[in-house]
Amino acid sequence: MISRLIEKIKETKAPICVGLDPMLSYIPETLKERAFAEKGADPEGAAEAIWQFNRALIDAVHDLIPAVKPQIAMYEQFGIPGLQAYERTVRYCQAKGLVVIGDAKRGDIGSTSAAYATAHLGAAEICGKEYPAFQTDMVTVNPYLGSDGVQPFVDACQRYDRGVFVLVKTSNPSSGEFQDRLIDGRPLYEWVAEKVMEWGSPCMEGEWSNVGAVVGATYPEMLARLRELMPHTFFLVPGYGAQGGSAEDLRHAFGQDGLGAVVNSSRGIIAAWKQEKYVAFGAGDFAGAARQATLDMIADIRSVL
Amino acid sequence: MISRLIEKIKETKAPICVGLDPMLSYIPETLKERAFAEKGADPEGAAEAIWQFNRALIDAVHDLIPAVKPQIAMYEQFGIPGLQAYERTVRYCQAKGLVVIGDAKRGDIGSTSAAYATAHLGAAEICGKEYPAFQTDMVTVNPYLGSDGVQPFVDACQRYDRGVFVLVKTSNPSSGEFQDRLIDGRPLYEWVAEKVMEWGSPCMEGEWSNVGAVVGATYPEMLARLRELMPHTFFLVPGYGAQGGSAEDLRHAFGQDGLGAVVNSSRGIIAAWKQEKYVAFGAGDFAGAARQATLDMIADIRSVL
Repeated sequence: MISRLIEKIKETKAPICVGLDPMLSYIPETLKERAFAEKGADPEGAAEAIWQFNRALIDAVHDLIPAVKPQIAMYEQFGIPGLQAYERTVRYCQAKGLVVIGDAKRGDIGSTSAAYATAHLGAAEICGKEYPAFQTDMVTVNPYLGSDGVQPFVDACQRYDRGVFVLVKTSNPSSGEFQDRLIDGRPLYEWVAEKVMEWGSPCMEGEWSNVGAVVGATYPEMLARLRELMPHTFFLVPGYGAQGGSAEDLRHAFGQDGLGAVVNSSRGIIAAWKQEKYVAFGAGDFAGAARQATLDMIADIRSVL
Repeated sequence: MISRLIEKIKETKAPICVGLDPMLSYIPETLKERAFAEKGADPEGAAEAIWQFNRALIDAVHDLIPAVKPQIAMYEQFGIPGLQAYERTVRYCQAKGLVVIGDAKRGDIGSTSAAYATAHLGAAEICGKEYPAFQTDMVTVNPYLGSDGVQPFVDACQRYDRGVFVLVKTSNPSSGEFQDRLIDGRPLYEWVAEKVMEWGSPCMEGEWSNVGAVVGATYPEMLARLRELMPHTFFLVPGYGAQGGSAEDLRHAFGQDGLGAVVNSSRGIIAAWKQEKYVAFGAGDFAGAARQATLDMIADIRSVL
């Protein structure tokens, strides 16, 4: 799968992904009102609004980008209808040829992690037939439970040609509380990084492993250090834009060939129409604003490659 | 919420919860065949089999126990129908008066963690009305992202009178890879434990906090040490039975008043009918086997209190 992502990055010359994290406040009122009128001002209506919002965004940006990253929490909060909108969004993006990175941050022990891997990467076996559930192309994974929590996801990568990004150093302000603590002189996230390389070494596709790492744009020195430490590990980099990370901060996420990372922006793109900079598009052309914000982000990142 | 759990533990004299983690292999063939004939040999049929299996188990044991712990991964792997069975199971257990601990191990940053807290403890606001999604009474949470990942769950506890159990020391073989690593002379799980107490201190109900901790039965010395360190933190203890933890190992999870922990068993109870010891019940009376296994577990744990 990682080679497919890289191929798409080369094609689009855009090492970015758009985070499909639709808060209701990002969706223009008229779109919401129409969805509520049709399905009810309830989770069914909210899910319909999210789906229509996503579809318009995908239609507007799919030719510019290699991948999307839907954040499942934003769908899960609306229960079953929300998760139906998630599934529909995943399928629509895949039909458009996008690599879909499910941001689920799942992680548990043995057979339970295996069930999560089935849910998000593989397929459930029922009477000898396989049924996929959410089946994204790649998924984010939490490492706190150690190897027997992560291995079932790695196994699913091998079996179904999928990929994972394991949380190493996250972009949030308090990520350092545990991740930066020193163990034998090195921060925890470096120990996690070592394990990520170990988990990923049997899953190579050419130079890169199907087991990647999440490393936040908001800690550029750590990003540089981890890039050096993990030469065959692709990075998923959150924190650009709305969270404060700049293109300059990202320079070190990439190798000399300009590869090595896919940078995510969510709010900065899908809610671009609410920003001063894109106000001319108006709420009615939220998708046009998203397309322009995507082009601007691509230009910004290309400037440091 | 923690006081409700404790009250139920005192009523039943049983500091245990039954893990509703229904692998298809735990469900008797005749039940599965009936469900597949009715709904199809597919995720709909699997979800129906799981629901019927759960309902019979709950009917058989609900008067003996204070709480259940459904593992959402086991439902999520069957996609939307699986999650519908999860929701139905949660509601059924709540209607029977059980405290439902959703084992979801969610965790993300800021607004995303808030969405998970909405999904599993709270309710989504749509046009000024609140709609609950899965709304369990308590939920498990992963601490790797630090305070801004956990705080939204704590806020939901306050707002909706709910509880959380934060992963501190998990029961699996490789939990030590990161959790046991020494930071300034103390293992990571103790640093997490300190934060759990900090997060929990504004959420006290009498002597106990609504912010609890997951501590595995499989590491009895660490359990004893954490009990000492965290006098006001209730423990959810996995790892008893099938995973290898014995009642003797659990002694230190409890204070002198016999309170302080709720011990989970999943396979040992819900798949009891497959064990040599309960073979006389037969597949047809899997629920009777589960009731007997519950009584045996309660007697076993009472013996060390």
